[in-house]
Amino acid sequence: MVQAWLNSPPRRIDHRAAEAARLRQAQLTKPPGALGELERIAIRLAGLQGRERPQAGNAWISVFAGDHGVAAEGVSAFPQAVTAEMIKNFARGGAAISVLARHLAASMEIIDLGTAGGLDGVPGVRHAALGRGTANLAREPAMSDEQLAGALLEGRAAALRALGRGAEVFIGGEMGIGNTTAAAALACALLNDTPANLAGPGTGLDAEGVAHKRAVVERALSLHADHLREPREALRRLGGFEIAALAGAYVACAQEGLPVLVDGFIATAAALAAERLCPGAAEYFFLAHASAEPGHARLVQAFKMRPLLALELRLGEGSGAAVALPLLRLACALHGGMATFAEAAVSARL
Amino acid sequence: MVQAWLNSPPRRIDHRAAEAARLRQAQLTKPPGALGELERIAIRLAGLQGRERPQAGNAWISVFAGDHGVAAEGVSAFPQAVTAEMIKNFARGGAAISVLARHLAASMEIIDLGTAGGLDGVPGVRHAALGRGTANLAREPAMSDEQLAGALLEGRAAALRALGRGAEVFIGGEMGIGNTTAAAALACALLNDTPANLAGPGTGLDAEGVAHKRAVVERALSLHADHLREPREALRRLGGFEIAALAGAYVACAQEGLPVLVDGFIATAAALAAERLCPGAAEYFFLAHASAEPGHARLVQAFKMRPLLALELRLGEGSGAAVALPLLRLACALHGGMATFAEAAVSARL
Repeated sequence: MVQAWLNSPPRRIDHRAAEAARLRQAQLTKPPGALGELERIAIRLAGLQGRERPQAGNAWISVFAGDHGVAAEGVSAFPQAVTAEMIKNFARGGAAISVLARHLAASMEIIDLGTAGGLDGVPGVRHAALGRGTANLAREPAMSDEQLAGALLEGRAAALRALGRGAEVFIGGEMGIGNTTAAAALACALLNDTPANLAGPGTGLDAEGVAHKRAVVERALSLHADHLREPREALRRLGGFEIAALAGAYVACAQEGLPVLVDGFIATAAALAAERLCPGAAEYFFLAHASAEPGHARLVQAFKMRPLLALELRLGEGSGAAVALPLLRLACALHGGMATFAEAAVSARL
Repeated sequence: MVQAWLNSPPRRIDHRAAEAARLRQAQLTKPPGALGELERIAIRLAGLQGRERPQAGNAWISVFAGDHGVAAEGVSAFPQAVTAEMIKNFARGGAAISVLARHLAASMEIIDLGTAGGLDGVPGVRHAALGRGTANLAREPAMSDEQLAGALLEGRAAALRALGRGAEVFIGGEMGIGNTTAAAALACALLNDTPANLAGPGTGLDAEGVAHKRAVVERALSLHADHLREPREALRRLGGFEIAALAGAYVACAQEGLPVLVDGFIATAAALAAERLCPGAAEYFFLAHASAEPGHARLVQAFKMRPLLALELRLGEGSGAAVALPLLRLACALHGGMATFAEAAVSARL
């Protein structure tokens, strides 16, 4: 299925705005460079948003959920029913990402892309129903072409809703029992790496469970080996609804010029898929945190960026990205709100 | 000068509240441990605040400023007049810490402990006037006994004001041209380490400047060598008004049970002095960030803690501690606001 929108390039960076921001930073009442990463964040955001004084107050969180056929292989520490149960928990406000969204005054929506049991009419949830979870990627492609196209489009639609509401930062979250297995398989394909480096404990497997999970990923990579060179096909065969939706959202954000805070292991795998689908998209990404999931470090290496936080988080849902949001906000507040040496009549360097 | 208050021990940790918080964490709808450092923050804060569900909404920032006689040795990239100029910048809201306090809705006060030129009646500033800056620590003790006692008491008074306003977290900031030299000298004394490991570029010295600064610290350590075993005397001879005030504030916070977010190089040197003056005080400290000032890592090693952030900040003023404040707030929000597995009817692990 041809999806013309995927072929649009990322919006061009506004290097003039970034340069204006850099000049402003040099005039603020502090030793040059003393705000470290916060200065770089402000300057990058200026280029992405096309204004000397960027903003990150209006933040949007889309949480994508879906089930995974590969759960049948016994790759998770939690039963598959948890995906649907957590969708309801998101909607009722009891999940980590719900609490964070509330505390951060960020808009949040939940998109159910298809659970094993089927869900309908959960208040506060958008039901997209691409299928009763994906197929088992260890035995067949996870998605049909139509399902992949649908998931990518659901992601794009979320990014467009965020833009429509004036969002200045986009956060994508995910939930789906079994999705670290799918993300590990996809990452192996995109990085040409091995399950030993990318499949880890996820929600809490023991050593035996991790070994089994790696064997399942190994099997999947063998099965699909002849079809993994093309990123879209790798995503279709090894990904999942929510992983594809995240990739679609990230591509659309880059095309529309909306900066993205990328969460942990699964989100970073999706971000890498987005960069492969739409080269240059990663210019719009900030890696929010270094996940405790061991394979995350390999994914991070594929980007020329250092994650902003390292708090040993491994929850997903977009929670690590939400926790990093205050850094972007404070970087913007400092950049826009500090006095210059001239304004404050403070002496510059000797 | 005897200061009886310094001899009171830190308030006892409420291990029951910490244990209740630990049990609560295990029931929240997430894989055990998935919120990493944020879980540990909430559990620690519970023990320090004596309640199962701690809070960090009400935050207090005291910025202590003072001049340093050692500036006469040419150890800073900025002229000494900047201390007084920045005090005015703090008060007018143009400095980094002013912007951060505003954005974070934290209470902030500025305490002028004595500048070289003398300041009086700056609106929004408390003037303590312990002297026109300290004496040159490379030639004589930086402070008289009375000045040290006064600075420690000013710090304690700030902590008590914070408590009086219901603060749940205390942040101390500092400003003083030359104070990385004083902090490095003090750190050398407290850690029995060398200037090569603790004196660095500060606000931006070049290699030659750093070498000169190290020689100045070396000279000071030789001069005072016979009087550095006792921490109070080391602080008097090598510290500064704002460093001593921070130490006094930190001790009082620990005695009164108020958790502290410790900023970067200078604040951590003061925190180490506080721990030496009042053993156990460090139980109340969170190290906010790993500073870009190279010597900070040595100071951090003296505490059994990992800094929460690593953003290459090196501004001081309490700015790094303020940037870390949202982590404490989000940790508390998650801890108090997430649903338990039972409340959300979510299945636990297989």
